[in-house]
Amino acid sequence: MKDIYEMPGHLARRFQQIAVAVFHAEVGEAGYDLTPVQYAALAAIDKNPGLDQVTLAGLIAYDRTTITGVVDRLVQKELAVRQPSKKDRRARELRLTGKGLQILKDVGPAVLSAQQTMLRGLDPAEAAELMRLLAKAIDASNELSRAPMKAMPATAGTT
Amino acid sequence: MKDIYEMPGHLARRFQQIAVAVFHAEVGEAGYDLTPVQYAALAAIDKNPGLDQVTLAGLIAYDRTTITGVVDRLVQKELAVRQPSKKDRRARELRLTGKGLQILKDVGPAVLSAQQTMLRGLDPAEAAELMRLLAKAIDASNELSRAPMKAMPATAGTT
Repeated sequence: MKDIYEMPGHLARRFQQIAVAVFHAEVGEAGYDLTPVQYAALAAIDKNPGLDQVTLAGLIAYDRTTITGVVDRLVQKELAVRQPSKKDRRARELRLTGKGLQILKDVGPAVLSAQQTMLRGLDPAEAAELMRLLAKAIDASNELSRAPMKAMPATAGTT
Repeated sequence: MKDIYEMPGHLARRFQQIAVAVFHAEVGEAGYDLTPVQYAALAAIDKNPGLDQVTLAGLIAYDRTTITGVVDRLVQKELAVRQPSKKDRRARELRLTGKGLQILKDVGPAVLSAQQTMLRGLDPAEAAELMRLLAKAIDASNELSRAPMKAMPATAGTT
C-alpha cells in the first residue's frame, strides 16, 4: 500500500489546511475579520449583484445547507443585504452594502499576498503549472463533489 | 483583482472538497464507514504501533485539540486501543486491534481507487507532476499551518 504522504487525498487536505491558515493570518494581520468563504461570497455578490442564495452557493461551490450561515454573517457584519426581489416577492436578492464594497476592495492586497505565501515554495513557472493542473483535475471531477460549482444561470442576477 | 477561480486558495478548497467526497463515496460503496482522517490515523498507528496521541496528531498533521475525537471514534469502532505505557504509566499508547489491522488492509483497494478517481482528469505524467508540486508547496509552508506535520520523534513509538 502506498504511503499516505504520497496520496493525493492527503496532499489535498494539507494544502487546504495551509491555504486557510495563511488566509486567516494575513487577512487578520491586515485588520480584517473575514474567512476565505466569506471573501469568496463577497467577491461573487460583487460580480453578480442581485443573485439569490442558491446561485451564490453554486458560484462558490458551497453547500446549499450551509450557505445560509455564510450570508447571515455577511449581513450581521453589514457587508451585504438580502432584499426582496422585484420580479418575485418571495425571492431574496443579495447585494453588497457600501461597507461591503469598501472592505472587498481594501482587503484585496492581503488576500493577494496570502495567495503568494501559500505558493512560496514554488518558482513562478511551477506555481502556474500547479494552478493549471489543479484546475484541470477539479474540472474533470466537479460533479463528484458534494457542492459542485455551477455557473451563473443565463437568466438570473442581472441588475 | 484576480478572479477567485484563479486563486490557489479557491483551488485548494475545491480540490479538498472533491477528495473528501470521492473518498466517502468509494470507501462507503465498498462497505466501510471510515473518514479520510480516520484512515490516515489507522495507517499511522499501524506504521508506528505504541505511539501517543500527540505524536499521532503530528504525523497526520491534525489538530491536537481534535485528534482526541478521531481516536475516540477508532476506539468505539474497536479498530484501535489506548493502553497504558509500560515506560510511563500516565501515558497512553495507541495500537490497532486485529479488527483494525484487517479493515486497514481490506479498505486499501477502495482508498487507492478513490485516489485515482480524484485525478481522473489528468494523464499519469500530469498527475505525478501535480503530486510533486503540491508536496513541494506544502513542504515549504508546513509551519504556516495550524497543525504542522511533525516527523516521528526518534525516541518514541518503538515496539
